[in-house]
This record gives sequence, structure tokens and C-alpha cells, in this order.
Amino acid sequence: MSKVRPISGFPEWLPGERIIEQHFEDVIRQTFELHGFASIQTRAVEPIERLSSQGEDTDKEIYAISRLGAGPEATSRDARLGLHFDLTVPFARYVLENAGKLTFPFRRYQIQPVWRGERPQEGRYREFTQCDIDIVDVGELAPHYEAELPLVVADAFSKLPIGPFRIQVNNRKIPQGFYLGIGLTEVQTMLRIVDKLDKIGPDAVRALMVAAGATAEQAAAALSLARISAPDESFVEQVQALGMEHPMLTEGLTELAAVIRVGAEHAPGVMVADLKVARGLDYYTGTVYETQLIGYESYGSICSGGRYDALASDGKTTYPGVGISIGLSRLLAKIMPALSASRSTPTCVLVALADESGRAQGMAVAAALRQRDIPSEVAPVAAKFGKQIMFAQRRGIPFVWFPASDDQGGDSVKDIRSGEQAAADASSWTPPAADLRPRVMA
Amino acid sequence: MSKVRPISGFPEWLPGERIIEQHFEDVIRQTFELHGFASIQTRAVEPIERLSSQGEDTDKEIYAISRLGAGPEATSRDARLGLHFDLTVPFARYVLENAGKLTFPFRRYQIQPVWRGERPQEGRYREFTQCDIDIVDVGELAPHYEAELPLVVADAFSKLPIGPFRIQVNNRKIPQGFYLGIGLTEVQTMLRIVDKLDKIGPDAVRALMVAAGATAEQAAAALSLARISAPDESFVEQVQALGMEHPMLTEGLTELAAVIRVGAEHAPGVMVADLKVARGLDYYTGTVYETQLIGYESYGSICSGGRYDALASDGKTTYPGVGISIGLSRLLAKIMPALSASRSTPTCVLVALADESGRAQGMAVAAALRQRDIPSEVAPVAAKFGKQIMFAQRRGIPFVWFPASDDQGGDSVKDIRSGEQAAADASSWTPPAADLRPRVMA
Repeated sequence: MSKVRPISGFPEWLPGERIIEQHFEDVIRQTFELHGFASIQTRAVEPIERLSSQGEDTDKEIYAISRLGAGPEATSRDARLGLHFDLTVPFARYVLENAGKLTFPFRRYQIQPVWRGERPQEGRYREFTQCDIDIVDVGELAPHYEAELPLVVADAFSKLPIGPFRIQVNNRKIPQGFYLGIGLTEVQTMLRIVDKLDKIGPDAVRALMVAAGATAEQAAAALSLARISAPDESFVEQVQALGMEHPMLTEGLTELAAVIRVGAEHAPGVMVADLKVARGLDYYTGTVYETQLIGYESYGSICSGGRYDALASDGKTTYPGVGISIGLSRLLAKIMPALSASRSTPTCVLVALADESGRAQGMAVAAALRQRDIPSEVAPVAAKFGKQIMFAQRRGIPFVWFPASDDQGGDSVKDIRSGEQAAADASSWTPPAADLRPRVMA
Repeated sequence: MSKVRPISGFPEWLPGERIIEQHFEDVIRQTFELHGFASIQTRAVEPIERLSSQGEDTDKEIYAISRLGAGPEATSRDARLGLHFDLTVPFARYVLENAGKLTFPFRRYQIQPVWRGERPQEGRYREFTQCDIDIVDVGELAPHYEAELPLVVADAFSKLPIGPFRIQVNNRKIPQGFYLGIGLTEVQTMLRIVDKLDKIGPDAVRALMVAAGATAEQAAAALSLARISAPDESFVEQVQALGMEHPMLTEGLTELAAVIRVGAEHAPGVMVADLKVARGLDYYTGTVYETQLIGYESYGSICSGGRYDALASDGKTTYPGVGISIGLSRLLAKIMPALSASRSTPTCVLVALADESGRAQGMAVAAALRQRDIPSEVAPVAAKFGKQIMFAQRRGIPFVWFPASDDQGGDSVKDIRSGEQAAADASSWTPPAADLRPRVMA
């Protein structure tokens, strides 16, 4: 068998790093639940026809699955299954499939891996975890949800050691209306080009727009719009100063102003109107979000989403929705080096053994501690106490327990950081609250 | 696009059922952590050559993945990737890959989906969640871990509403030694046949053994061994009464007796020696486990595992391990109909709105409640209070909050089950502890 080695684009964490990832997942889940989002999980696969054609580059990035035991002709392309590349498309399908059993507006969160066969690069993986919240309703969706979702993310991020961040909000109706107003008809194409502004710069964007059919004047106007950004409603005047009018533009400005106003009121300093944000996926129809870590703007968005009015529709009924997704793997890839866990195991107490014959007694001590929610394990072998203490030390386990023995008298527990040792009773001793679980520190 | 419909073998839960699944996952995780197991997660994919040839039927059940954008000739078979079919094979690879960064004996847990392209049937899925614990060491693994793992599972199960269960333990060295003693050399083949005893009955097993080369006497002897079962060490005498001796048999009997003895001491009534248990996977080398729900024995095992001495080896160093895996999806498929959740959302309090202009005030009330860990959401629309109460009722939300208004005086909260309403302050009111989170009931 070939040598064991990592597979590019499929990252894995060591146990201490996984404790940090779990802390993030726990805080995000708790925050989502505090805001009344219900958990669902969708299967990893969807019919490929449902996954495809959601955006420019996604099709060829889809991973198809096939049983090794099945011949290549065993399944027609239509019946073929692929791994989901986001959690929004599966969620829209779940809503359609279960509409009769859900109550609307339906608030759900979903924390799961997704797969994209992209070229792996910094912060871009082939398997990565997303943490999504979405709200869908039947027929119509109240616009106040478009302001609510980034506030939920801001609440989660405020409890995590990620440093300052900025949620950039736009409304696709603004560039769409503006482009139509200046006579640019290939709106989706132009949006996708402008979406690359941060990555490739204004000159390259201008060149691509012209290559796609825009005049130099149209490209310049689109770039002027894309440059507008403000932490408050003042962006509306800046757009009006460009002298363009279109009903769709007006609608977009009104909607975005409402989102920014609510954001400024409930989470001052977090949300900005940023008119270059477009998002690559075609299903967004109004508000769109991206999120930057301040100081790492070129890293790109770590939390994105938007409103989609037509993704979930069975032909008769449409379920418009709005969603936002934390790119957890992407976020952690950036900030993991700045974080550490106080230990690499949940264990708070290692029960030492003077002798292998004392294992049953040691197991009883550990069981008594666990009874009161104190993570405990018994030493692997009755080695010299010094070796057992070193075993705890290497993992960052703070306490070593010495069960009663003829030599030693009653039970005692040692804080191996301070060296302090004291008599203790497994049915009542409690560690300091800060030591009970591994801590995550910046 | 074709109609939305479930995909056979890829089950999904509704939100209320998902709350039950989450409760199981949480209790299992907490128990694993209380016993000092560290979480890891492995990527969903492994090289196919690492997945294949681990047992009779697994090869053709492996799902290979391929990018839609890649031609069929783009990757050689050797470089091809497949979805993991269990969590043991990926864990063994993870240990080899990270051996220099782990501390041994290494205790880890892993809760993740796995995929097998089997024919879907009751309790058998193509995508399902497994909850694994394993302990691996370098070179040698202490046998006391073989008794410890089922005790951890028993601890988790004792906190879950699953009814009575029985962990059946065997040691492969017993049938192996016995078969060699009676002159049966195709040991793996015979083990796999005997493993089907519960499913196909003794006559079919006898016929299969004879078809595979056993004499009628050998088959009868093997069946006599397989019929032995005891909650204590008395199984040793029953085996000795069969009059067969072989060094490997003796070794297996001693090892199994030790496991059963420790089990009877620390979790009386949970573990039984059951000499028909063999497990289908080839990598097990000693102790093996299966678990039955009492009263549903024919459903098969809901928690299985065993000791593997050679799975993780890089040619120079071997990392023997022992593991056990709760088949969470399989377990829930059986018992879900008997369980219910007190509500289908985490929300404990719905903040009602007298008027849409009061939304900012309602959001402030919800934020104050969340500040003290009370899951809260604001009503979707300022409908009549009766309609807002019905919205809460349909989801099982126990409390509706009425913010202060000119008409109504100060804030008040209503328990919509009893109809009781009382003045309340969002900065201090607390619901009964039992109402804070959804409860799971049998």
C-alpha cells in the first residue's frame, strides 16, 4: 500500500486544534439556537441535475459518486448523485420535500461539510464545514429577516476570538437596476466580473467588462457604483449623485437602506453598505452579504449569503428565503495559528495507580468524578508516579488523583501545575470551573 | 427538473426528530468526553486502495468520487478517492499520518457520517452516522482497554431512553483456536458463515459450512461452540466440556473471561459472553463486540467493534487498537417512533408585537433574554395576538412575551399551556429549567 499522506484540499486537525474547532462549532450552534433556529441535517448527496447550473464555475467542481460495484453504464446521468457544494441548495430541496410538515416562516441552522472540486489554495478546500442559517416563508418573505441574519452572525462572532470583522451588505437590485439604466443587458455576466474587483483590481475588471460587451463609459460607471461604501444610509446619496435612475435601482436602495439602518441600531459598527459585493451564485435575487476580517481584507469573505426568491419552488408554490453561511473551515484556516487550547484532551483528572491490582478502585474513583461531570480517566499502566504525572503533563491534564492506599492514607489530588496536593473525596471534590473543560485562548 | 423526492438509503429527519437525534449525539459526546476521549474528525474520503479488501462485501459497496469536470481517464485507479465506509479505517490512517504529534495511548472519539452502497433495508442505510471510540497504543495495547470500552457505551446508553440492551462479547481467538483444533482451516470463511447464525438459523449455517468444505461433524461442533452464551465466566467450563484444546483457544478464553469479569463488576447485567459473535470485517484480531436491544434481537447489532492488532502499521511500527462504534442512525431508526420532543424549535420565548413599529423594542427584549441563555425569537409579523399565540403553539414554544406598551402597561409573559400571565422583566425573568431547552421523552 502506498505511503500515508495528506490529500490536498482535505484538511484535518490534530486533537488540540479540533478542540478549538469544536469550541467554534459549539458557540455558533448555541448562538443559532438562542435566536430560535432549529437544526436540520441534509444527506450529503443530491441528484446532479439539482446541483448543476447554479453558477458560473460550480458544474465542473461537483463531485459525482458511483458505487465501485456498479458498471459505468449502470446509472443514467439524470439519476446520478453528487456531493452538495453548499447547504442552501439541499435546504431548498428539503423545504420543498417537507413543506407539508414544516411551519412557516421556518428558521433552520445547519452545520455540515460540503465539497467542491476546486483547485486547493490558501483558505480554499475541497472539503470544508459551513454553518448556515436560513429563514424561508411561503409566497412572501418579510424584509426584516434580511437585517436579522447578519445580527445573528455578529452575535456569534462577538463570542469568538476572531478579532474585528465587517459584514458588507449589498442588494443585487442596485447594480442590476443601475446596469439596465446605463444600457448594460448582460447583468449576470457583469455582476460576476465586478464580484472579482477585490481579487483582480479595477483595471482588470474594466478590461473584462469591455471584453464582455460593455463600452468604456459603461464600465467606468459600473466601477464608480462598485466603489461606493458607507457604514450608514449615506450611500443612497452617493448613488443618486451618479445621476442614474431606474425603478429596480430605487427598490434596491430602499431595501438596503432599511437593512443598514437596523444593523446600525442593533450592532453599531458591524455592518456596512458595500456596493461591489455581488456573490458568484446565480440564485440570489436581492440582499447579499460578505464578511471580512479587518486587517485581512484580501483573504476574502468568511461569511456570505443573501436573499433568494425563487430557489425553492415546485411550480405551484414558491418559498422565498434569506440565508447566511459562516465558512468555518475557511475562518479557522486563517486564525488557527493565533489560537491555542489549554489541553489536547477533555480529561480534567488522571487517576494514578500505585499497583495494577488497584485498577478497579481507580475505575470507581473515576466513575464517582464523572458522576459529577468531571472528565476523568485512569492511568494506562501502574508505572512510577513520576511517569504517570508526566503522562498527564504531556496532555495538559491539570490534576492527578491518588487513591487511598495502605501506604498513603486517604485519597488526595495534586494540581500538577502548582505541585499543590491536598486530601480529597471523589464524591465531593470539585476542580476550579476554569479547569473543568479545555479552554481556548487567543 | 424532476420532482423532489427522497433518495432510498439516504434518510433525513424532520426538525422535531432532529432534536431527538441531537440529544443522542450530545449525550454520547458528553459521555465520551467524561471518559477522556478526545474528538477528531477525518476527511470523508480515503484512497480507494486503503478502503478496499477489508472484508467480504465491502469493496463493491464503496462509493468512488470523481469531479464532473474531469474526464474519465483523468485519474488512475490508484489515485482514486472513495467515501469512507466506517470510521476505523480512516482513524488508523490518521494515527499513522500523525503518530509523531499524538501522545499514546491515544483515546479518541469520532461522530461522523459514513457511506456504504448496500441495498437499503430496515435499519440499513447508504448514509448513516456512527459514534466511535478507540484507544490505540504503540507496539502493545493493554488488555484492560477491551473491558473499558463497552463500559463507556453502557454509561452512555444508561442516560438515553433506549430501553434494556445487552453487549455481547466474544474473542475471535476462541472460534479460531477451536476451528483449528477440529481441523477447519478456512477460518475467516467459517467465521463469516457463523456470523450469520442469528439471521439465517443453524440449518442454513450448517449447510453453508459444509458447502465451504467442513464435514458434518465439524459443522456440528462449530455450532455447539456458537450456541454458548453466559453472563459470567461459566462459559469457560461450557467450552471445556466440548473437549477441544488448542493454545489459541486457551488464550481467547482467558482474555474473554477477564473482560466479562470486569464488566460484571462495573456494570452488572450489561455484558454477556456470546460465542457466536464474529463480525464481518477482517481486521479484528481478538475481542469483538455486538449490542442487541432486548426484545428486538432480530434487528441485529446497534453497537459493534473489536480489537485490531495490525490495522495501523507503517511496516516499522504497529499501533494496535480497540474500538467500539454506536450505529446512531440504525439505533434511531428503530426507536424514533417511540420518542418525542417537547417542541420542534429551540425557542423558549416568542416575543409578540402589538405593532410593526414595535419590532426594535421586541428585538431588544429578545436580546436581553438571550443574554441570559434563554432562546428567544420575535414574532414574524404584528398579527392579532391570538394569531401570534397560535404561531407559538404550533411549534410547542411554551412562553409568549408581551412588551410594555401604552395600552398594556409594563412587560408581561404568558405560559400558553396554562394561560397564566404575569408581569415580567426581560433582564431578570427566568423560565422553569425544564422549559429552557426542548425535552426528549419516551
